[in-house]
Amino acid sequence: MSTIDDTIAAMARRARQAARAVARAGTEVKNAALLEIAAAITHEAEELCAENAKDLQAARAGGLPAAMIDRLTIGSGTIVGMAAGLREVAGLPDPVGSCGPTRVRPNGLEITRMRIPLGVIGIIYESRPNVTVDAAALCLKAGNAVLLRGGSEALHSNRALAAVIGRALAAAGLPPAAVQVVPTADRAAVNALLQQEEWIDLIIPRGGEELIRFVAANSKIPVLKHYKGVCHVYVDEGADLAMAEAVCFNAKVQRPGVCNAMETLLVHRAEAGRFLPAMAARFAGAGVELRGCPETCRILPGIVPAVDADWPAEYLDLILAVKVVSGMEAAIDHIAAYGSNHTEAIVTRDYERARRFVREVDSSVVLVNASTRFNDGGQLGLGAEIGISTSKLHAFGPMGLEELTTTKFIVLGSGQIRT
Amino acid sequence: MSTIDDTIAAMARRARQAARAVARAGTEVKNAALLEIAAAITHEAEELCAENAKDLQAARAGGLPAAMIDRLTIGSGTIVGMAAGLREVAGLPDPVGSCGPTRVRPNGLEITRMRIPLGVIGIIYESRPNVTVDAAALCLKAGNAVLLRGGSEALHSNRALAAVIGRALAAAGLPPAAVQVVPTADRAAVNALLQQEEWIDLIIPRGGEELIRFVAANSKIPVLKHYKGVCHVYVDEGADLAMAEAVCFNAKVQRPGVCNAMETLLVHRAEAGRFLPAMAARFAGAGVELRGCPETCRILPGIVPAVDADWPAEYLDLILAVKVVSGMEAAIDHIAAYGSNHTEAIVTRDYERARRFVREVDSSVVLVNASTRFNDGGQLGLGAEIGISTSKLHAFGPMGLEELTTTKFIVLGSGQIRT
Repeated sequence: MSTIDDTIAAMARRARQAARAVARAGTEVKNAALLEIAAAITHEAEELCAENAKDLQAARAGGLPAAMIDRLTIGSGTIVGMAAGLREVAGLPDPVGSCGPTRVRPNGLEITRMRIPLGVIGIIYESRPNVTVDAAALCLKAGNAVLLRGGSEALHSNRALAAVIGRALAAAGLPPAAVQVVPTADRAAVNALLQQEEWIDLIIPRGGEELIRFVAANSKIPVLKHYKGVCHVYVDEGADLAMAEAVCFNAKVQRPGVCNAMETLLVHRAEAGRFLPAMAARFAGAGVELRGCPETCRILPGIVPAVDADWPAEYLDLILAVKVVSGMEAAIDHIAAYGSNHTEAIVTRDYERARRFVREVDSSVVLVNASTRFNDGGQLGLGAEIGISTSKLHAFGPMGLEELTTTKFIVLGSGQIRT
Repeated sequence: MSTIDDTIAAMARRARQAARAVARAGTEVKNAALLEIAAAITHEAEELCAENAKDLQAARAGGLPAAMIDRLTIGSGTIVGMAAGLREVAGLPDPVGSCGPTRVRPNGLEITRMRIPLGVIGIIYESRPNVTVDAAALCLKAGNAVLLRGGSEALHSNRALAAVIGRALAAAGLPPAAVQVVPTADRAAVNALLQQEEWIDLIIPRGGEELIRFVAANSKIPVLKHYKGVCHVYVDEGADLAMAEAVCFNAKVQRPGVCNAMETLLVHRAEAGRFLPAMAARFAGAGVELRGCPETCRILPGIVPAVDADWPAEYLDLILAVKVVSGMEAAIDHIAAYGSNHTEAIVTRDYERARRFVREVDSSVVLVNASTRFNDGGQLGLGAEIGISTSKLHAFGPMGLEELTTTKFIVLGSGQIRT
């Protein structure tokens, strides 16, 4: 075994030990630790920024794009944001230890399910150092230990954050090994992490599709993955077109670079002639490029004709594919063929079609008369989120604290035996 | 791509198509299909037994042990059992479409979670052909399509069952591709199955630890695994020793070859001198071999001393490891070190230790004053079960119909946009 394999295996074993202590810690202890971390990050901001400066210097020397350098920077705003995030998580209800309904069996056994931590969670992410703090906070509050593997560009920043967090955990009476940062930029460390199925219960990759596919293909540990968001809005026959325009504009334009932005607009043929010209004018005012099916192009002459690659595209940009459909059935079929099971919305006035769309569309969030931008843990009332799962096992959709836990069965008896 | 890869990929694509139809099918349609399959299996019993005879002949020619030939045999009892199982699943409540509580957000959005099928489930199992029918029934009732890969010894039997099931599905108006049996004994088919992450949502391996480790190491698809059951009973200080004796005897002897049987008995030092001699006498009467720690051996002279390999052993036989411990803390530490997160029980009269044992033992089922043998979907009130998960993602413990589903978010609005 190489040194990196040894290092990672030892970290994972320490995390497993620490996880037992975090799992037993009461809500007050965990909250005190989160507030302690918030105070420590604020108090040691200068040191954190000094370590961050080393990463920034290397990034500039390496010619990283300005947008990435911006994401990498820990400024006073980042410090305030991280501390506020920690306090927010401290304020969320603790899922651990709560029990569901109790059912009594004919033999008198009382059976319930108790919510418990998952154990050890590995998070593999790209360059933003605030993820280090946000992810650690959510994992800790849900009673887990966490191993963090950030981008190599942020290595100094992440190591400094881990040191601050470790001291705060110790001050709060929790083992520092409950939050560990992989201390090397070597990519072999990722592979080593993915082999620790004896000690790690869950891997969450956060980043581009390539990273996520690599992790899913190479992990022996269960992975919660979020591939991409190819989100659709379907404007139904008879819809309130003013509402449809507002919802579609918001879904595309309010923040086009995120996974819950609309990428394809589907319009019922009966409304296309009235709806599309007004909608297109509004999109044009916001600089949105439209790429239309042949029927859309006839209604909106001069726009770019869509090609096959447009229908499954996640643009993450001010570009929108537009298709005229013969009805809701065709819209649902299009979504099944090209969607990514992320977020789909219908704008309609029809009771039965609203019910059918909600039942038949196979996405993590399905909305009626609301913007796709609401697929977000905070907006849906989960509190903070650690990501959005587009695969169905364990969690489907935004993952909050509860999705970082599982349940065990509790059986209370008075000497029952099986006959 | 080889022919087997092509065949498996085509089956998986057909399963995905069929899954959409099963997901939309109402409870009445699914129940009618299950009853239709039960009738068809009964009606075509002769044909099934004829195909089964080919497998039995090959098994005898190949010198398979009598116990395996017994498991492989489809007799009139097997037929009756399979039909009864189908009718039982038809009678269980349908989890699909049920919604949890609705929460209203400050902006008026109404948010709930709806239970939905997983999609396509792949089951890889060993030689019992009745698993083919039991697994298909549970997957169908939960709205899923299923791909079944049974043992090569049962290939004729499984193909015949798939043909009968397919005709019954068609008669009930569901696509026959909703239940497919991999029609080859080639082991390459298993590898091919594990690569179909685009079309298959979940793999459930059922069989020995070697099979399960192979599947977990090679699958690109999420796997629900059950490694082994190293189950403990801890007899606490002050326990009702008559109750302890009854619970321990049942946990070890009632059916020693299954995963929820006790493998290690932990006894508090204060009770060991009184409890162990009586317990050992009762075990001796049932032919149970004891392997004790040094302290146990002093109390029970003449028993086999336990070696290191006994503590993590899953005997599945009339053998029991016995250890005297200094208290509950030591018992919990022993379980954490050697257990398999499957099933653990305490026999106690102490309120606070009962609460702590339940909270701190990290197993899928934790019992107070009841036999470990109750870790079973039927016994815990889930209805039929498809297996017991000892890993924490998605399901932990017995998996019934609900564990073959997931949830999506439903958001009902009146034109809300995000600001």
